[in-house]
Amino acid sequence: MNPAMSDKRVEAVDLSHHISNLSKARLPSPLKSLAKYMGKPGLITLAGGMPHPDYFPFADISGNALPQNSYSVDASSRTSSLSWIWNIFGSKPKTIPVTIPKYPTASDQVNLATALQYGQATGLSQLQAFIKDFAAQVYDPAYSNWTCLCHTGNTDGLTRVFLTLLNPGEMFLTEEWTYPSALATAQPVGCKPVPIRMDGEGMRSDDLKKVLSGWDEQARGAKRPHVMYTVPIGQNPSGATMGVSRKQEIYDICVEYDIIIIEDDPYYFLQMKEYRLPSERTTSKTKHDGAAFIASLEPSYLKIDVQGRVIRLDTFSKTIAPGSRLGFFTCNPLFAERLERQGETTTQAPCGFGQSLITQLLVTWGYDGYVRWLHGLAVEYEVRRNFLLDTLASEFHLRPTLGVQGIWKGLEVFVAYAKPDGSEKFGYGNKLFSIVPPTSGMFLWVKLHFDDLHNFQPGDEESLEMQMFIKLAESGVIVAPGWLFAGNPADPPEPGSGHFRIAFSNADPENFKKAVDIFSKVLRDFHKQ
Amino acid sequence: MNPAMSDKRVEAVDLSHHISNLSKARLPSPLKSLAKYMGKPGLITLAGGMPHPDYFPFADISGNALPQNSYSVDASSRTSSLSWIWNIFGSKPKTIPVTIPKYPTASDQVNLATALQYGQATGLSQLQAFIKDFAAQVYDPAYSNWTCLCHTGNTDGLTRVFLTLLNPGEMFLTEEWTYPSALATAQPVGCKPVPIRMDGEGMRSDDLKKVLSGWDEQARGAKRPHVMYTVPIGQNPSGATMGVSRKQEIYDICVEYDIIIIEDDPYYFLQMKEYRLPSERTTSKTKHDGAAFIASLEPSYLKIDVQGRVIRLDTFSKTIAPGSRLGFFTCNPLFAERLERQGETTTQAPCGFGQSLITQLLVTWGYDGYVRWLHGLAVEYEVRRNFLLDTLASEFHLRPTLGVQGIWKGLEVFVAYAKPDGSEKFGYGNKLFSIVPPTSGMFLWVKLHFDDLHNFQPGDEESLEMQMFIKLAESGVIVAPGWLFAGNPADPPEPGSGHFRIAFSNADPENFKKAVDIFSKVLRDFHKQ
Repeated sequence: MNPAMSDKRVEAVDLSHHISNLSKARLPSPLKSLAKYMGKPGLITLAGGMPHPDYFPFADISGNALPQNSYSVDASSRTSSLSWIWNIFGSKPKTIPVTIPKYPTASDQVNLATALQYGQATGLSQLQAFIKDFAAQVYDPAYSNWTCLCHTGNTDGLTRVFLTLLNPGEMFLTEEWTYPSALATAQPVGCKPVPIRMDGEGMRSDDLKKVLSGWDEQARGAKRPHVMYTVPIGQNPSGATMGVSRKQEIYDICVEYDIIIIEDDPYYFLQMKEYRLPSERTTSKTKHDGAAFIASLEPSYLKIDVQGRVIRLDTFSKTIAPGSRLGFFTCNPLFAERLERQGETTTQAPCGFGQSLITQLLVTWGYDGYVRWLHGLAVEYEVRRNFLLDTLASEFHLRPTLGVQGIWKGLEVFVAYAKPDGSEKFGYGNKLFSIVPPTSGMFLWVKLHFDDLHNFQPGDEESLEMQMFIKLAESGVIVAPGWLFAGNPADPPEPGSGHFRIAFSNADPENFKKAVDIFSKVLRDFHKQ
Repeated sequence: MNPAMSDKRVEAVDLSHHISNLSKARLPSPLKSLAKYMGKPGLITLAGGMPHPDYFPFADISGNALPQNSYSVDASSRTSSLSWIWNIFGSKPKTIPVTIPKYPTASDQVNLATALQYGQATGLSQLQAFIKDFAAQVYDPAYSNWTCLCHTGNTDGLTRVFLTLLNPGEMFLTEEWTYPSALATAQPVGCKPVPIRMDGEGMRSDDLKKVLSGWDEQARGAKRPHVMYTVPIGQNPSGATMGVSRKQEIYDICVEYDIIIIEDDPYYFLQMKEYRLPSERTTSKTKHDGAAFIASLEPSYLKIDVQGRVIRLDTFSKTIAPGSRLGFFTCNPLFAERLERQGETTTQAPCGFGQSLITQLLVTWGYDGYVRWLHGLAVEYEVRRNFLLDTLASEFHLRPTLGVQGIWKGLEVFVAYAKPDGSEKFGYGNKLFSIVPPTSGMFLWVKLHFDDLHNFQPGDEESLEMQMFIKLAESGVIVAPGWLFAGNPADPPEPGSGHFRIAFSNADPENFKKAVDIFSKVLRDFHKQ
């Protein structure tokens, strides 16, 4: 961040009226009232029930970590599925040591005596410094007094945000297809989603405007929403990627209607090039350029957030490991203070073993190194997406068409038909499914076509989706059925269709091939009936 | 646990009417509905957004841990303060290696591919097995179908329990002096404490019975409580230790009035011998005997919980390190299921780095080794308690008297008077403070006497307590002022007295001596005024 530029930015506007009643009642632990007396050099503190660090049984902890450049950023070097294995390291990867001693031998060294002691809910100081600098360089928020605060993963983060902003009975805006755990999180808070129509970029600004301007409190049984939950990159489940102009349209509406945006962005760094069929793919060598990689990413809502009404959720789950249970908020200081208070009565600080290992790894890699690591990951997931789609393209006939309705209206959609015997001739003639190759995230959203089934009856969609899901599961493949992701389960599904979400993040190549074989067989049998 | 014995025990009674409305509304994440299809060998799972473990940057993690017998169990070998240093290891302690590979090389080996992946809120299977066996051997619950469930430390655990059991506006029973974070946790749930009078064993059963039998819903503005929060061992702040006969009296009342007991027991393994003045101390060599050590501990409420109405909270904060952010519930399966659901929308599984290192350490030590480690810790804290009390005994004249009122009625209480010039003669004659040496935990509860002050006015207690706190802080020592721990801050303090809670868990010997010197000087100055 250019400090001169920052100086010219204004502070967040007053958004205190968004704080929930529950959150207002949340005071810091009374022990915090002693904080003003603490911190003098030489002070002897006998106030807290803290074990002596000598009694922490670990004298040190360490890890052998992959170097930042372990994964190639050149997708074209990885496109031959025959020569390509994911576990590229074999049994002995090249690694760098990361060690955390119990007691520091240099000032500001990450150490267990601090990391494993009771700590602030804000997290280790070295981690705070890293993420603040990272957010400044990568997200570049548009107001001056933004801050960062650790949480224990985006699910914890989202629960804290919902409890901080929502009173029971309130509704919140979200995409018509969304992350089911977000809805499960809102449920005990007593809050229901208002689904907004989507297109290939995710949430539609025109439908958002329509819903808000026409809000009928009587009919809806709730006040007009003042909170939006959105996954703008690698949208879950659709895989949509939202560009900055759509974000600006939505942001402007949120200013007009005074709405807080919860930007849940676990897949932000998994943005990838558009998919091309193998026959149309051109190979050009890619070299890593950190600034160019960051510039190639669609900007966060923070970049246009001149008022401080965005609470961004970042997680290390997809970039380090889900078991990190570590992530951070970037938001205005008023919200951060309430979110910290809430952390104090739940997890307190995130786990010190995880915090110290991850912090030391990030410090070892440095900002540039972490960006290099992220670039490598993005390419890995791009290669995985390509492999899944290539396998589908080889098993089915994928016909490019123009989407005419629903979330893919106006986009190039691949419609899949069976190849009956491996030849290029069309098969049974039935439309089996449609896809739009995602440009971010971990998921392929598959629209299943039921209206070519000879015995199809409108209204059977959800039942047919689950019948197909069960047949697949019984044949050895589990995908996520579409109904799980319905923003409003009471909404009728798209006529004549069902959905599957297929993750391309985790399987090995031979399993992808097996899964596509099984998928193909189940679809054909289904359409033969 | 003897399985034959377990078979004869009955299951928990139906306690479903204690579940709060908020908790009832808590359903599992919709993805959980797929669980029944999972787990078949060879199944290809493309349902969840899970990164491939190859992308976890740690090829392995490890730690150098102290052997189980690092700390002596013989307090008498550690009583000479001159020869005694806490950091007994110097720069190179003897350690044992604990390593977690990314991929397991033997079945059931703790590994990062599992520990750092998305996991069940119940925790790693190896950890579940360890704590279930540990709870069976140490706590031996009195009903048959008890279970254990991981949480991320007792603060998280307590929040989950409050939200699972309490509706807004309800009150809960607790000690008249209690842990302030417990009250801070209940506050946003909208629930207030009902303080029960204490004596030297903690909560009094006669006052509990009186409060419940005389409950006036109109006057109290709340229904009779159905939840009790209690710290029965190393009671915070008083340091009281509750024996099994008092627990049985309280349990029977809880059965009669249908009350759920939340047993928050972080100091359970820090039970210690009674304090004797150095002049009266006898030294006898102690050897470790695991079964004898466990048998010497006051039983948990679980031991008498024939109905399954106890939710016990255990934490690794005091036995491994606070930064572990790991602990576990032991309770009936109905409550465990609700508590697990709640975990799913907050932290999910505890941090995989911490879980795997702690699990591997516990597995390496084994049950017997962990018990040996706990025994060593208990003795260390006993030695620390002795050192603090010996230092006070050397600085002040401690006169043993019989407590006549308040929480120490009937107990041997040491009343402290100044020694003006290091001689054994009485000083200014003023009673300065009183203590009852604790037999568990980390805290010395100090009653300050103000009624000997020549200008003392009844009603000045809280102000005098804080004046003395501030003088101490300005002189370089921080203790915890008593008002922080008032179960009901509106309750008047004991006439003529204030309180400090002094932790003996963390300071080094020279700091204890300095702190006692400063405390002495501040007290004398205060009483000279």
